[in-house]
Amino acid sequence: MSSSWGNSIRISIFGGSHTQAIGVNIEGLPAGERIEWEEILEQMARRAPGRDKTATTRKESDQPQVLCGLLDGVTTGAPLCAIIENTNQRSKDYSQLKVLPRPGHADYTAEVKYGGYQDVRGGGHFSGRLTAPLVFAGAAARQILRRRGIVIGAHVLKVAGAKTEDRPFHSTEISPELLKRLSGEYFPVIDPAARESMRESIEEARLSRDSVGGVVECAILGMPVGAGDPIFDGAENRIASIIFGIPAVKGIEFGAGFAVADSRGSENNDPMYIYEDGSVRTRTNNAGGILGGITNGMPLIFRAAFKPTPSISKEQETVDLRTREAAKLVITGRHDPCVVPRAAPAVEAAAGIAALDLLVQSRML
Amino acid sequence: MSSSWGNSIRISIFGGSHTQAIGVNIEGLPAGERIEWEEILEQMARRAPGRDKTATTRKESDQPQVLCGLLDGVTTGAPLCAIIENTNQRSKDYSQLKVLPRPGHADYTAEVKYGGYQDVRGGGHFSGRLTAPLVFAGAAARQILRRRGIVIGAHVLKVAGAKTEDRPFHSTEISPELLKRLSGEYFPVIDPAARESMRESIEEARLSRDSVGGVVECAILGMPVGAGDPIFDGAENRIASIIFGIPAVKGIEFGAGFAVADSRGSENNDPMYIYEDGSVRTRTNNAGGILGGITNGMPLIFRAAFKPTPSISKEQETVDLRTREAAKLVITGRHDPCVVPRAAPAVEAAAGIAALDLLVQSRML
Amino acid sequence: MSSSWGNSIRISIFGGSHTQAIGVNIEGLPAGERIEWEEILEQMARRAPGRDKTATTRKESDQPQVLCGLLDGVTTGAPLCAIIENTNQRSKDYSQLKVLPRPGHADYTAEVKYGGYQDVRGGGHFSGRLTAPLVFAGAAARQILRRRGIVIGAHVLKVAGAKTEDRPFHSTEISPELLKRLSGEYFPVIDPAARESMRESIEEARLSRDSVGGVVECAILGMPVGAGDPIFDGAENRIASIIFGIPAVKGIEFGAGFAVADSRGSENNDPMYIYEDGSVRTRTNNAGGILGGITNGMPLIFRAAFKPTPSISKEQETVDLRTREAAKLVITGRHDPCVVPRAAPAVEAAAGIAALDLLVQSRML
Amino acid sequence: MSSSWGNSIRISIFGGSHTQAIGVNIEGLPAGERIEWEEILEQMARRAPGRDKTATTRKESDQPQVLCGLLDGVTTGAPLCAIIENTNQRSKDYSQLKVLPRPGHADYTAEVKYGGYQDVRGGGHFSGRLTAPLVFAGAAARQILRRRGIVIGAHVLKVAGAKTEDRPFHSTEISPELLKRLSGEYFPVIDPAARESMRESIEEARLSRDSVGGVVECAILGMPVGAGDPIFDGAENRIASIIFGIPAVKGIEFGAGFAVADSRGSENNDPMYIYEDGSVRTRTNNAGGILGGITNGMPLIFRAAFKPTPSISKEQETVDLRTREAAKLVITGRHDPCVVPRAAPAVEAAAGIAALDLLVQSRML
Repeated sequence: MSSSWGNSIRISIFGGSHTQAIGVNIEGLPAGERIEWEEILEQMARRAPGRDKTATTRKESDQPQVLCGLLDGVTTGAPLCAIIENTNQRSKDYSQLKVLPRPGHADYTAEVKYGGYQDVRGGGHFSGRLTAPLVFAGAAARQILRRRGIVIGAHVLKVAGAKTEDRPFHSTEISPELLKRLSGEYFPVIDPAARESMRESIEEARLSRDSVGGVVECAILGMPVGAGDPIFDGAENRIASIIFGIPAVKGIEFGAGFAVADSRGSENNDPMYIYEDGSVRTRTNNAGGILGGITNGMPLIFRAAFKPTPSISKEQETVDLRTREAAKLVITGRHDPCVVPRAAPAVEAAAGIAALDLLVQSRML
Repeated sequence: MSSSWGNSIRISIFGGSHTQAIGVNIEGLPAGERIEWEEILEQMARRAPGRDKTATTRKESDQPQVLCGLLDGVTTGAPLCAIIENTNQRSKDYSQLKVLPRPGHADYTAEVKYGGYQDVRGGGHFSGRLTAPLVFAGAAARQILRRRGIVIGAHVLKVAGAKTEDRPFHSTEISPELLKRLSGEYFPVIDPAARESMRESIEEARLSRDSVGGVVECAILGMPVGAGDPIFDGAENRIASIIFGIPAVKGIEFGAGFAVADSRGSENNDPMYIYEDGSVRTRTNNAGGILGGITNGMPLIFRAAFKPTPSISKEQETVDLRTREAAKLVITGRHDPCVVPRAAPAVEAAAGIAALDLLVQSRML
Repeated sequence: MSSSWGNSIRISIFGGSHTQAIGVNIEGLPAGERIEWEEILEQMARRAPGRDKTATTRKESDQPQVLCGLLDGVTTGAPLCAIIENTNQRSKDYSQLKVLPRPGHADYTAEVKYGGYQDVRGGGHFSGRLTAPLVFAGAAARQILRRRGIVIGAHVLKVAGAKTEDRPFHSTEISPELLKRLSGEYFPVIDPAARESMRESIEEARLSRDSVGGVVECAILGMPVGAGDPIFDGAENRIASIIFGIPAVKGIEFGAGFAVADSRGSENNDPMYIYEDGSVRTRTNNAGGILGGITNGMPLIFRAAFKPTPSISKEQETVDLRTREAAKLVITGRHDPCVVPRAAPAVEAAAGIAALDLLVQSRML
Repeated sequence: MSSSWGNSIRISIFGGSHTQAIGVNIEGLPAGERIEWEEILEQMARRAPGRDKTATTRKESDQPQVLCGLLDGVTTGAPLCAIIENTNQRSKDYSQLKVLPRPGHADYTAEVKYGGYQDVRGGGHFSGRLTAPLVFAGAAARQILRRRGIVIGAHVLKVAGAKTEDRPFHSTEISPELLKRLSGEYFPVIDPAARESMRESIEEARLSRDSVGGVVECAILGMPVGAGDPIFDGAENRIASIIFGIPAVKGIEFGAGFAVADSRGSENNDPMYIYEDGSVRTRTNNAGGILGGITNGMPLIFRAAFKPTPSISKEQETVDLRTREAAKLVITGRHDPCVVPRAAPAVEAAAGIAALDLLVQSRML
């Protein structure tokens, strides 16, 4: 019933696209952690629209304000609540969304669930704009993690229609430097050549009044061995449950992911060895850093599939909920032809919150 | 920290492969629901090993005993606890697992996490045997759902190396009858021809002392519109978090799943129309029955990827945790060359528990 | 680890006495409920300081702002977040509180727990000011309850040193009108004569630079039979766990409460009879409306004991946490000589939130 | 909706008076903790009926069996589930309880809530017998605490009608030895002289076919400073919410408790000083060891009020739920004339579970 997530670190996200503000309340943060403001803003900027021509030209003013929980930039141990005021909404009539629900959106399901009382303006509580407070919370969590040597980065692995995919993590040496670089880019890719191909595909979709989906791949480097629990509180369960909180995600896979379904045990089992520093490592990482729900010290790797933006300006088939008859719909307004690049910082943020929660849950922080 | 799952319906799974018993405690079941014992046993039998030559020849005595919560076969509204005694364990020395962890298993992560105090016999709390109480709980939940017109079925969509895949749900007419048939088979497939090809691949893996992975696809038919919530308590989040509770799952996808990453909005959006009974339906079901985390009345469809059984009898590379040196390992004993057919009832069970929880969470039951 | 409460309706309280704002996020409210703003403000005003000469002369600007969750004054089903900006803090140096902790306050425990990073200004997250967002949330919840015929009222049953106590609920006919009257007063009493005596005692304490404790008694009228669950999710457990969230509460009792320890079964059992409308009632209400954790349809009655305000201007014995030596402390500033009258609306609010949560948990709303 | 309790350590209690078994599943216990079986049995014996002539002469076979979670008597880190088979139920017809509900019992509320499907035999899930698994879980938790220097003991402070009360903790030197002594007695008192007076009162009640209530007082010695959190996850909230899980509890108070309502700040504030070992202590302990929800290193003290056993053999006034008419009821069978002595080990157990949970929640264990 809630828009809250977490066992030991808990985030509660509130607001809608056109409410006075959106925000997040974070509970369980350890006291004494400095939160660098510039880094927060940098992550917020990566998510905000209007920064890259692949994205919508809407400008969202994503200036967060901390209401409580920080004193002189340092966590106090009390809940940290931050809000972002909504300032740039174009005033228009959204009432049509209750009558002619948009395919691929939550208009119809929300109408039935909330009996017509839901806030439909700009998508309401279902809006992708709600990833802004998620990114805020994640940016704070990631600073706490980085102080413990844990670094997170994500990249756009593929975009529909692009001839070239980005290089996947499993064929890359994953260094903290690589992840930091990715985590600073607006359209993060390991291999910059792939970016152009993806951009072309996005631009082509935009010109044809359409949109494209894609995949974000994320790595968490530096997780100690032992975070997570068997069965229901494992790293996969916890990460999946937060990642599906990002709108448009339709799938998640860890390590080799769905490819395990095509492999044999002798290929998929990761051979173990002793690394030069005496630690236990595996030669491959098909497990994605997780065995039995518990981190094994290898990079934690997962991928999330994002559907193409459902708001397209092509004419679509819908229904009139009043007359119960067929209807046509053309969506106007500014929309991302592809949310995937902007989704990368949201994926990193969610990964950071999950990693912090897993560590606290496992009494490792 | 817990092996419990659920907001409104809560299941807690306990036990290990060689403890006196394993079991499940189910909280939140409505009172007055008759639980048909034969159906419970039928589902338990589908999961139990030794029924099909694709599976291990171990016999597990999966006779559940209800300790409380049923009176004359009807739920009382109090917690329902059922246990299964462990009777058929071969007595042997498992201490090697603490020294030479098996690749692909949780031996190493558990050793670090529990400091050597974990129960390693037969996999302990990480054993696939823990799906037995899950199947019990799911079989009970599904009877409650079926009384409300909600039916669940899963099939083996693919097995590594098989030339033929099974027909996917999206190209099938999903009827309650189909799902009931699948839910009664030991190796459930929509197209029986595919089964032989898969069996061959499994047998071939067994003969080469190896194992194969695969995919289970599941459908929930009859979910009313409105179950689930936006952001973190949506149908995808909740189902993913329980499905990753089944050992060996490395990925989950809903509706079109990862294929959305290759599609355009105009292809992926499901056109809406009014069905002959006046209900709102969509012509395609790329959404997998979920929009904005909320069920839309279409069949809820998802797929889970299972890795090949990590226990293979080929020699493998591991490490000696005492000497911190490289070591070789040959695993003996009886093991499934492919868990996927036996996983299907566990997936159905988890889906049933999740569906019941979503309905109660949404005050629809 | 959290400042959140609730299973089905969840409130998260954030902020501190001197942070930019304090507030509350409410999750799980049903959609379509009108929230009357005047009633919210009326309850906020009852809690605010400076309205009655028995209380501190500090003025707190308790103007709530709704950030989200209401549309045209009606709940949307999405989280409702409201904040109150902190505007009237006197700027002063609070660093002494980390060195010379005030007896009866959380200064010392917070210093140890948060390692000196806690926000000590005005009590920080421990401040009684945090009851303002609680009152906001309760005022909203109570409007939803009242629409279902459930009314809540509390009164000051006693104040230390007062010659006269107020008339207790068990010797009063509890009508909705009585509860509404109580819930509109700044110093709510059933018998106005008792108020004068209590005020005298409070004034006397103030003049002697001291403070006094007291008891608030609360009634919830109109709860249907069947809310709450046995053992740990019963009405008593749930109400107690929220009531101890109000600072200064040191005890809670239901129905006859601690007096049951002096009684026999034949006295304490409430004889049952059929009321004229056909409902089952009891002649006495020693159970306080709860049997086996479940509401029985009789008025739900409980009492909470409040300790005297620990901030007194008499000299007190403390310790110097730096030198680890004995020290003397004189607290200056404006403080309530008695928080009990202002606590009454907070108790009503907490009761309202708990009642709403119990009803939703029991699928009765 | 659940019979589960806990954030970081979670116990789930299941079963009813006449089900095949009752039991408890404990999640979150640290691995590597030896559980001494004799101590478990000793605590179970203290709770069991038939040991003391003040109690019922029913014999309950309280032999717990551990199904999982222990290996060679040491916790594995996996859930620990223990059951107690029900063996000594007298077979009789309980159906009358659905028609003629017993005053002071949950018969009527359960009938309405569960629509007649509840298990009424021997009280079902509402039975005081459910404190047996609570005592089991508490006895395990307390061994883990004792290894960290934390000791718990409770005594019967008063029994209705007794001329003499026991000496309260606040006027006693609370040593680990005292608490260990109390925790080994069937009718634990600080001052043995008081026991005789209480026994007389209980015997007198029994002879007059009646019952008496009383108060149990409990101390937790050795809690470090810093366990618990402000507002809703404080030590008082958490302890209260578990203590009301013991049937018949109608009130709880901490430290000075309801007496704070009669006191002034200058009396109630506990003066602080530096103890000879350099620790911070208070001269009095009106706070009961808790300030702002957080333990302050002083003994944590609370009292719980128990109502007189509602099952008395005097004739009582009830209603016939079929005919909706007045009816008379005489309860037969063996019943405790006073549950208070047997409740003491249950209170200790609940305190132990809560203390362990608070420590883990606060990352102190």
